[in-house]
Amino acid sequence: MSTPPGLDDLLTLLRFPSVSTNPANIGDVRDCASWLMAKLRSIGLSAEIRETPGHPVVLARNVHQAGRRTVMLYAHYDVQPAEPLNEWLSPAFEPTIRDGRIYCRGATDNKGQLMGHLRGLEELLAEGDLPVNLIFLIEGEEEIGSPNLKPFLEQYREELKCDMVAISDTGMVGPGLGTFTYGLRGIACMEVRVKGPTIDLHSGIFGGAVMNPNTAVARLAATLHDDEGRVAIAGFYDDVLPLQTWERQAWEGLGDSSAETLTLTGSPELFGEVGYTDMERRWGRPTAEINGIGGGYQGAGSKTVIPREAMMKLSFRLVPGQDPDKIMALAEAHLNAHCPKGVRLEIIHGHVGMPYVTDPHSAFGAAAQRALTATFGGKVALIREGGSIPIVQAFKDVLGVETLLLGLALPDCQAHAPNENYPIANFEAGVKLNKALLAELAEN
Amino acid sequence: MSTPPGLDDLLTLLRFPSVSTNPANIGDVRDCASWLMAKLRSIGLSAEIRETPGHPVVLARNVHQAGRRTVMLYAHYDVQPAEPLNEWLSPAFEPTIRDGRIYCRGATDNKGQLMGHLRGLEELLAEGDLPVNLIFLIEGEEEIGSPNLKPFLEQYREELKCDMVAISDTGMVGPGLGTFTYGLRGIACMEVRVKGPTIDLHSGIFGGAVMNPNTAVARLAATLHDDEGRVAIAGFYDDVLPLQTWERQAWEGLGDSSAETLTLTGSPELFGEVGYTDMERRWGRPTAEINGIGGGYQGAGSKTVIPREAMMKLSFRLVPGQDPDKIMALAEAHLNAHCPKGVRLEIIHGHVGMPYVTDPHSAFGAAAQRALTATFGGKVALIREGGSIPIVQAFKDVLGVETLLLGLALPDCQAHAPNENYPIANFEAGVKLNKALLAELAEN
Repeated sequence: MSTPPGLDDLLTLLRFPSVSTNPANIGDVRDCASWLMAKLRSIGLSAEIRETPGHPVVLARNVHQAGRRTVMLYAHYDVQPAEPLNEWLSPAFEPTIRDGRIYCRGATDNKGQLMGHLRGLEELLAEGDLPVNLIFLIEGEEEIGSPNLKPFLEQYREELKCDMVAISDTGMVGPGLGTFTYGLRGIACMEVRVKGPTIDLHSGIFGGAVMNPNTAVARLAATLHDDEGRVAIAGFYDDVLPLQTWERQAWEGLGDSSAETLTLTGSPELFGEVGYTDMERRWGRPTAEINGIGGGYQGAGSKTVIPREAMMKLSFRLVPGQDPDKIMALAEAHLNAHCPKGVRLEIIHGHVGMPYVTDPHSAFGAAAQRALTATFGGKVALIREGGSIPIVQAFKDVLGVETLLLGLALPDCQAHAPNENYPIANFEAGVKLNKALLAELAEN
Repeated sequence: MSTPPGLDDLLTLLRFPSVSTNPANIGDVRDCASWLMAKLRSIGLSAEIRETPGHPVVLARNVHQAGRRTVMLYAHYDVQPAEPLNEWLSPAFEPTIRDGRIYCRGATDNKGQLMGHLRGLEELLAEGDLPVNLIFLIEGEEEIGSPNLKPFLEQYREELKCDMVAISDTGMVGPGLGTFTYGLRGIACMEVRVKGPTIDLHSGIFGGAVMNPNTAVARLAATLHDDEGRVAIAGFYDDVLPLQTWERQAWEGLGDSSAETLTLTGSPELFGEVGYTDMERRWGRPTAEINGIGGGYQGAGSKTVIPREAMMKLSFRLVPGQDPDKIMALAEAHLNAHCPKGVRLEIIHGHVGMPYVTDPHSAFGAAAQRALTATFGGKVALIREGGSIPIVQAFKDVLGVETLLLGLALPDCQAHAPNENYPIANFEAGVKLNKALLAELAEN
């Protein structure tokens, strides 16, 4: 197979271990940003590094002309840590091609998708000008929660004004199936501390006489769901906007995802809210998950202790209609009402994020779908995703624009995991998609 | 106050940081054993250090004479670690006297009680011979579960033949109240691993579609008790020998321990099996405790994970009539029957110990009670304790003898905790008790 144009640049980009969370990689992250800036300049854009309190943003643009659409492309050049290193079949930061896929940390998340955009721009610029006013914002802190992005958008609000944002950092339903993600779940996080005795107790001496915080946290956690997988917090579902008929049908048209979810998770069997399909449960229904639970002795062997405290960390995934702060209040009321005797609760609110939904049938949504059809042919999958992408909310809050999520990751690309990979075919599709998208957005 | 005879020896013994669990203290443990051996020889006993695969046993005896009772005294010279050191008001291994109490790691558990016996023997030997054939076995591994004691008893079974064992390593109900502990709870430990997906999952992407092992372990743990504090495992109480009228009355005569338990534990309120007093719950009723529970992310902040596995560590305290192996089987059946959908269980059996009860009205029991009366005056408190002392079972299994538990620790002596202490008055009482006990046992 001949090497597609632009692939060498992707391999170069992948070799930077731009791990944003590790202070040891600060220099690598900056080198990566510098290389990108130089590359963007070399294809004919003005590009610069903009400092933030953390890792820098790479910002590029063409010469803007009045009367044209302004399109912001967002991508990120930082990556997750590569550990555990011993599970990689080839070195984590040495891109290795096997069976048409590039194996490297960051291959799919997000450098492969980033370079699809960049190569698309390069080809368009080689042919002449871009059809739109372009702002290409490439962040270096996405993998640590984009702590400086919203302030950055606020600081440069005027300069960053645009008509919409397009991001390739989500997934495709399957190979060759163009996928438009029109919704994301929101989130509300809290930590619950269950406090009993003032000191750790010997469970022989005091066992039977006091409530054990481990038992209490378990009994409390067990009240969060009913036996059929529904969240049992009063009022939890009150504001949920029901799935619309068109979207239930659209998802149904994608086939039954149960077998794939079973394979991807390795769970003994699927389990979730009764009355909904696997896709509906993951994309369209809210959840309560215990992300962490802990108390007492968790080491090897046994220790006969009744601990003074136990805890659990909860996160609620929310769907359109639900308000994270209201859900947090309902959850807190539920926990207090169900608190077992003999312990006290301390509830600590964590971060929240609004659910996001954009109309796939809007003008921009339709343009995005045409670009996907031009790239992949056939029908476009209209989906939501179950995760939360806080930057999408930041674009809406600060810049007042919608975000088009046109991701190219496949379910088996192993984002965040060892042996992350990205099909060369998806890189090539990304180039095509970039060009088609800018053309469609220019005209519609 | 004048210094009581023998106190200096106790202070010397306390200065050895004989922490059996810490490899850094191996030399200190041995030095402590050597000092004890020398001290025992100096008072007129034959004494030696006997090796084990771990820390050595100090073994002393007088010249045995046919036709006399053979009494084994058991004590231990090892101590718990002193950490957290910053909570000690005076150095953990520098005995410091405040308000008539000696503050030092090991003061009450067990060196203060050990030295009561030793000083008693010293005084009797200074006056002439002991009234009994004595075996004084002083272990160096009690705080790590006596892993080598049972093999030691088996190895030297003939040499260690005796009529009964007496131990001062339990508690007194209150200051000045001679206390005979005639029962201990048994124990059965198990670990339960709850396995779901084969990898940690992102709770945004997969939340709602699979059973979360954290949720499953909580729901499973919540089935262990009913709302009124009873263990909800089918058959759990079937073999429990009910408390006898005399013992319920004896305990009732000690007063209501609720206020003291509340103070000692610091729990917001007491909670336990409905229909039983605080003492009955702690001494006479079986329990199921979750000593540890854990799964997912327990660090600072939040991580939106569905972990592949969660776990809990259970221990059951058992009372006379119950068999640890049968309880383990009942518990396993219960857990399997209540296992939530979508996860698999792995159950690992841990250590077991039989409940222990000896008749306080037997000849030896009555002798022990007379010795307590001679020491403290007034009535003797007849109690059980909630903990388990595996060595008692070892003495019964290997040597075929009963154990008399004549402890001198007060509830506020802080055994195992910072600022462990022992009243000088209790040391003096221990000396008296030793002498009275040998006299009573010699004759009855």
